[in-house]
Amino acid sequence: MKNKQWLLAARPQGEPTRDNWQYTETELAEPGAGEVQVKVEYISLDPAMRGWMNDSKSYIEPVQIGEVMRAGAVGEVIKSNDDNFSAGDKVYGNFGVQSYAVCSTKGIHKVDPSLAPLERYLGVLGMPGMTAYFGLLKTGLPKAGETVVVSGAAGAVGSVVGQVAKIKGCRVVGIAGGQEKCKYLTEQLGFDAVIDYKNEDVKKALRSACPQGVDVYFDNVGGEILDAVLTAINLHARIVICGAISQYNNTTAVKGPSNYLSLLVNRARMEGIVVFDNAPHYGEAAQEMAGWIAQGKLKAKEHVVAGLETFPDTLMMLFKGENFGKLVMQVEHG
Amino acid sequence: MKNKQWLLAARPQGEPTRDNWQYTETELAEPGAGEVQVKVEYISLDPAMRGWMNDSKSYIEPVQIGEVMRAGAVGEVIKSNDDNFSAGDKVYGNFGVQSYAVCSTKGIHKVDPSLAPLERYLGVLGMPGMTAYFGLLKTGLPKAGETVVVSGAAGAVGSVVGQVAKIKGCRVVGIAGGQEKCKYLTEQLGFDAVIDYKNEDVKKALRSACPQGVDVYFDNVGGEILDAVLTAINLHARIVICGAISQYNNTTAVKGPSNYLSLLVNRARMEGIVVFDNAPHYGEAAQEMAGWIAQGKLKAKEHVVAGLETFPDTLMMLFKGENFGKLVMQVEHG
Repeated sequence: MKNKQWLLAARPQGEPTRDNWQYTETELAEPGAGEVQVKVEYISLDPAMRGWMNDSKSYIEPVQIGEVMRAGAVGEVIKSNDDNFSAGDKVYGNFGVQSYAVCSTKGIHKVDPSLAPLERYLGVLGMPGMTAYFGLLKTGLPKAGETVVVSGAAGAVGSVVGQVAKIKGCRVVGIAGGQEKCKYLTEQLGFDAVIDYKNEDVKKALRSACPQGVDVYFDNVGGEILDAVLTAINLHARIVICGAISQYNNTTAVKGPSNYLSLLVNRARMEGIVVFDNAPHYGEAAQEMAGWIAQGKLKAKEHVVAGLETFPDTLMMLFKGENFGKLVMQVEHG
Repeated sequence: MKNKQWLLAARPQGEPTRDNWQYTETELAEPGAGEVQVKVEYISLDPAMRGWMNDSKSYIEPVQIGEVMRAGAVGEVIKSNDDNFSAGDKVYGNFGVQSYAVCSTKGIHKVDPSLAPLERYLGVLGMPGMTAYFGLLKTGLPKAGETVVVSGAAGAVGSVVGQVAKIKGCRVVGIAGGQEKCKYLTEQLGFDAVIDYKNEDVKKALRSACPQGVDVYFDNVGGEILDAVLTAINLHARIVICGAISQYNNTTAVKGPSNYLSLLVNRARMEGIVVFDNAPHYGEAAQEMAGWIAQGKLKAKEHVVAGLETFPDTLMMLFKGENFGKLVMQVEHG
């Protein structure tokens, strides 16, 4: 049996291209003691992957040249040398961009395919959902009646941020690209207002969408949109820095927020988050979110692209704003 | 009797020039009911004045064209129509850049010239001292053993920030311009290390001055120095945004911090402060600071320039980094 893999071949300057990747097929290894062999079924594609391709200090080690690209994924245990896992178990782990993984059972956990489709464990029931939940509630600290703005609102994290803010009684304004996404946010997810950054002046649109100003801003994009929101924040506003997808492929310096002195004028705060810090509390969060899903208050949407071979192009959908919902790659096992 | 006044004549583009100001002499008015007439003795010159000259929304109304320039000041009551104030009392208030003020007694308070020279009530015992005290302790939240970095370290606010951080058991690193200031900070104020931004590469110098990284950064200057410190912060660092004097005279957009994503990597926070929010607690702070002064733990330095007529040039000393200690203008009453 062959294992199909995507390796990091070279570090990108700006946008990743096909040349940054190497496709390879290797003999599938047997699991050692305490290890499992997993057939990977769905692979999570996330903006953070762009950062892991750089050779620079961050919250996690860079992927090394020649290594299988890091990725969270779900799959099925084929062989197990750990009594806690059996063949047929569905599991989540950092399996990487490959069709099979052989790895230690440390850091993998079972998921229940009878509760939700497997790919959902990469979205609302996985890291993006946790990121939204803890970032909004622990760092954004929204209060009922406040106005919460979220960018990347139709994405994996943003769509959950907005829905959780609605559950908490906030006015929710989403920023997304294109009419289809905007319509989805108001009509399907109950957002109070949306701003189509591809077709509207965000600064002006914020004024009408947020007549009471902005109390919490959950930022996934950075750049001009962050600067626009800074002109609309209220006293004691909280800005959650979750990501800056507009800046990840820059070949020049990241655009810093020119309007950051609005933090001073408004005694406001800007704070960065990394989801892993909340690992001890994932269980409670998953339980609460599952309850909301069961009650129909929290909806999930995945954007599934079939075929491991599509990886270099599928990843780029994130940076072009082409995914609509959580971007997931499905591995086809013939 | 004539009242000598500096009025705002025009709003500046970039650096204020002589043309932004109008000097005038008017008849001195008599105080009305509930008012006092004050002979102004020392006038506080502060970076914030640059912001008040702009016609833009901030934490306080802009000064209008044709108005006496706003300024905190201390002086002596000459005539009083308020039983709580008598001729001869020394008082602090927003008396403006003029030799006499006639104003309501709301918002003015007595100061005790037997405890400290009058000009000190514009520095460590006044707004800059309060800004440092509350900004560092309430927002910076320094813990003993942590590293605190402060820019504008030889200025009115910065010098107090550093000394209070020392009192709290922190390693304190000051960033200031020129050898004389740097020497003063280590030899007179007990700073652990200093960085001379005019003669050193700040980013490199931070690495040796802060071997354990930066836990609290108190920023008075913004621009390149803020960006340099962002490369050196620790997990859960707190950045206090007090001002950005390097940016106040920009004719182009403020330089936003390109390295702000370090907040994400380090789960760190950047927060703005305005001293007035702490007004209910000024009394307690003043008492604690007076104790530190009495014990020799907190030293004050004022830079006094004589002559109301020097105002346009004296103000510019702030933006050129020419003041050494709290910049104060002394009004000479012939």
